[in-house]
Amino acid sequence: MSPLQVRNPFDNEDAEQAGSASAQVDPLLVEIDHVAIAVRDLGAAIDFYRDTFGALVEHREIVEDDGVEEALLRVAESYIQLLTPTRDDSPVARFLDSRGEGLHHIGYRVADCAVALQAVKDHGGRVIDEAPRPGSRGTTVAFVHPKAAFGTLIELVEV
Amino acid sequence: MSPLQVRNPFDNEDAEQAGSASAQVDPLLVEIDHVAIAVRDLGAAIDFYRDTFGALVEHREIVEDDGVEEALLRVAESYIQLLTPTRDDSPVARFLDSRGEGLHHIGYRVADCAVALQAVKDHGGRVIDEAPRPGSRGTTVAFVHPKAAFGTLIELVEV
Repeated sequence: MSPLQVRNPFDNEDAEQAGSASAQVDPLLVEIDHVAIAVRDLGAAIDFYRDTFGALVEHREIVEDDGVEEALLRVAESYIQLLTPTRDDSPVARFLDSRGEGLHHIGYRVADCAVALQAVKDHGGRVIDEAPRPGSRGTTVAFVHPKAAFGTLIELVEV
Repeated sequence: MSPLQVRNPFDNEDAEQAGSASAQVDPLLVEIDHVAIAVRDLGAAIDFYRDTFGALVEHREIVEDDGVEEALLRVAESYIQLLTPTRDDSPVARFLDSRGEGLHHIGYRVADCAVALQAVKDHGGRVIDEAPRPGSRGTTVAFVHPKAAFGTLIELVEV
């Protein structure tokens, strides 16, 4: 094939559109890492998911800094994260007092927590963690403020 | 091999444990189908997810029966479902009035909606839909009452 016969990818309308879309913003969210549910009785919630849906605990951890105990129930490549406070002044305790049990935050899995956090800042978004920090099960995480994201507390999770 | 040489699976401790676990309850949740977020301005929320995270709308639909317009943004095999009410008396409108914007419900993908719904009923769980019904994008769905599930509104989604 002569060089003249090599197709210029920029003559290809589909490639041009694809290139243009990915040039705008590279997709940063690679998985719904977890959906966190705040509960008062962790054991009872674990029992409910096991007995009703056959969902089993894969990991359980107390995160002292956040004042929570969590249980992770695997669903495909994602987790249901059941959360309960370990002390009265933890954010999850305050959430339970003001809103009751229920959906607490969503964790988006990202390739690079620092890059995703910077993307939020670059778009004027308010963050809770100014820099990535250690999360549970060896992850690196950063929380985005709900005011930046239509009332949703977002955790960016690098595994 | 004589019949006496056939290994009895119940002599195998691992097999016995695995058999015992799956005998309790077959796993019913095959994927986090979607996480639904109630917003007041659907266009602004779509713009936020596109501009900040590169997450794009794959499907958009008005569901008249539920009084909502939804936009689905794909993340791996799951979706972020942005929801906004289409009329003042829709449940999502009442949610926004009482709780504000934020996480609204979680949709678990199941192989058979009727089977999963029956599992909830069998465990004494209160349901919103007594029988599966059509959902958006050709799915079959049923909602479980938050009182049955630690404050979380659960949608069972058969695709």
